[in-house]
Amino acid sequence: MENNILKDLIQKNNSKIVLLVIDGLGGLPIKGKTELEAAKTPNLDRLASIGSCGLSEAVGPGITPGSGPAHLALFGYDPITYLIGSGVLEALGIGLKLESTDLAARGNFATMDKKGVIIDRRAGRISTERNKELCSLLQKKIYLIEDIKVFFKPVKEHRCALLLKGKDLADGISDTDPQREGEKIKEATPLKKGATQTANFINKLTRRINEVLKGEIPANTILLRGISKIPRLPSFKEKYLLNSGAIATYPMYRGLAELLGMDILPTGETIKDEIKTLRENFQNYDFFYIHIKKSDSFGEDGNFEKKVSIIEEVDTFIPEIETLKPDVFVATGDHSTPSLLKSHSWHPSPFLLISKNCLSDNLPNFSERACCQGSLGKFPATAAMALMLANALRLKKFGA
Amino acid sequence: MENNILKDLIQKNNSKIVLLVIDGLGGLPIKGKTELEAAKTPNLDRLASIGSCGLSEAVGPGITPGSGPAHLALFGYDPITYLIGSGVLEALGIGLKLESTDLAARGNFATMDKKGVIIDRRAGRISTERNKELCSLLQKKIYLIEDIKVFFKPVKEHRCALLLKGKDLADGISDTDPQREGEKIKEATPLKKGATQTANFINKLTRRINEVLKGEIPANTILLRGISKIPRLPSFKEKYLLNSGAIATYPMYRGLAELLGMDILPTGETIKDEIKTLRENFQNYDFFYIHIKKSDSFGEDGNFEKKVSIIEEVDTFIPEIETLKPDVFVATGDHSTPSLLKSHSWHPSPFLLISKNCLSDNLPNFSERACCQGSLGKFPATAAMALMLANALRLKKFGA
Repeated sequence: MENNILKDLIQKNNSKIVLLVIDGLGGLPIKGKTELEAAKTPNLDRLASIGSCGLSEAVGPGITPGSGPAHLALFGYDPITYLIGSGVLEALGIGLKLESTDLAARGNFATMDKKGVIIDRRAGRISTERNKELCSLLQKKIYLIEDIKVFFKPVKEHRCALLLKGKDLADGISDTDPQREGEKIKEATPLKKGATQTANFINKLTRRINEVLKGEIPANTILLRGISKIPRLPSFKEKYLLNSGAIATYPMYRGLAELLGMDILPTGETIKDEIKTLRENFQNYDFFYIHIKKSDSFGEDGNFEKKVSIIEEVDTFIPEIETLKPDVFVATGDHSTPSLLKSHSWHPSPFLLISKNCLSDNLPNFSERACCQGSLGKFPATAAMALMLANALRLKKFGA
Repeated sequence: MENNILKDLIQKNNSKIVLLVIDGLGGLPIKGKTELEAAKTPNLDRLASIGSCGLSEAVGPGITPGSGPAHLALFGYDPITYLIGSGVLEALGIGLKLESTDLAARGNFATMDKKGVIIDRRAGRISTERNKELCSLLQKKIYLIEDIKVFFKPVKEHRCALLLKGKDLADGISDTDPQREGEKIKEATPLKKGATQTANFINKLTRRINEVLKGEIPANTILLRGISKIPRLPSFKEKYLLNSGAIATYPMYRGLAELLGMDILPTGETIKDEIKTLRENFQNYDFFYIHIKKSDSFGEDGNFEKKVSIIEEVDTFIPEIETLKPDVFVATGDHSTPSLLKSHSWHPSPFLLISKNCLSDNLPNFSERACCQGSLGKFPATAAMALMLANALRLKKFGA
């Protein structure tokens, strides 16, 4: 649940808040220890003893969140109200700039037989190289249909993104991907009023794509999913009166932050680069979002040791963040990614908050199990911003 | 969130419940210990080892509640649905009896220059004595306008309360206080349908006040805030089938309890007096609300030692409450008031419940940090009444 009373309580001051999101931080034990427990994290452990800890839950008990909902929740946006379509996330993920009138979709190159039946939904996982060639072929042949500009962008292997720019494009269109082999490509249909024209356009576009790709077996069609626009999101500035800067190495997280009106701070590829960016910009913003990607990537790969090493690397930079003296510092994950499961999971994220105004929990270390004993308890991630703002003394009293 | 299934589950029996609210109980560490940790509380500590403990949160994570919302939540009323205006709270605070048709406002004596610009919102913090003189001057000159009775009541220093009694008075009127100096007094405007006439009345009244106070510099006007009526609240009797008595030394808490239909039991000024009142009335009610004020007052003053001593004093009366053998006894705060912050805060309140039917948590003591480990966990204060009623066996099973 998003906190709707918050907007009346916001007050400005000169405090600075740093939110460090270690993507997929939470894990499960292999040989008795989780990744966070196995990692040597003397700095985070020290902060856990003097800060407040708890477990944050992005969507709800048992619900495994995608990166979009997990981040929105942590930023205080109800992830069920503000659903970001997978087409938009895919487009953000490859660094496309989306306008509010644009329509984006996730595409799969696929194999269709002569009768139009899908026989391989991934076109034999063609190489990324081949994907690029096909996208540029499509782009050459299809650029403008009925005043709508069409962009084909390669992602990886068989995955591509489709971006449409034009007037009166509607979202609320069903997928053309039948989701299983042995069925024909589906007609796009309008799922809400006013979407008929766009649905017809998608079907026309699919026919044009099939013409261009004829003979390019195994990649002779594209299946579309998650046809969507960017949701209308109140900005961080509006919602919290915070000037905020985002530091992230991956395009999707920069894109998400941009949707919320954060300034995207140019940074390098490493954690060291990100901390340098924080230091150099520290005087210019009230709120910093720093995103560490690789803890999640190695979790998804099932690489326990590498995930441990990323957490350990993050830990070495904690003292540098401390020397900046943020008024509130939070280290947490957006969701858990246990190496054991090789995927995101539903387990809540360890959450550590430190400020002059927090109860020190005296916990022995920063870990999933220690956080169970913390004073913040288990709480919805949508409350995290209220906790940060409160500790920064940026919230007035509610009621007399 | 208020629990709406409760009303169908309520059953009567002969059990007795005692709710001891130690106002502003929760705190933050100074030299390693919170006020409650620093206090010698052998009796509360003993109860914590045999009772159930947890942390209760009045409004939500990060939200600092005023006394009104904090108490309503503890009594099981959703504090967001039932908002009590600050005018009503101020009037209750000085012991005024409000009827449902009355309108109350908080007033500030202020200084206005010749052009009508507010140059001091607090009239140089005039003495309470001067405040009384001015209220009685106003009362003499302004008593009845257009069939509406007007009452001016001094509070403290520059603060006064305004009470209006008459027909068709509406709430939903904007403040006349511009909230900052250098601006003119604001016109009261209707914020909802049907409030125009009352808004006009408030503006007329302000002009009359200015005429009377002309020449009384620095207190030559009154700024009004929180113009409000008492909200329609279902009574304790209706909601819980409880005959309840309130024991409080401060008028505001008696006033709040009266809004909920509790009987206000006459008592003295000390904690000893309050416990005596409990003992003398113990056979006459099902539910007792006892309010200890000074823990909050000393917290607001930043007086750690005095807050500790109030908690210690409360502790000495615990055995006397035990000898009455209430079926359910709860000791908690309405909100936290850390001496460190000199104000209410967002930190949840330590909560201790004891009954024949509770799990004994075997905690080492009664404190914020011990309560993190309690079996009640962290829970919304609006659930506290359900916990008390359940332990008193006053709730039937939900569903078959």
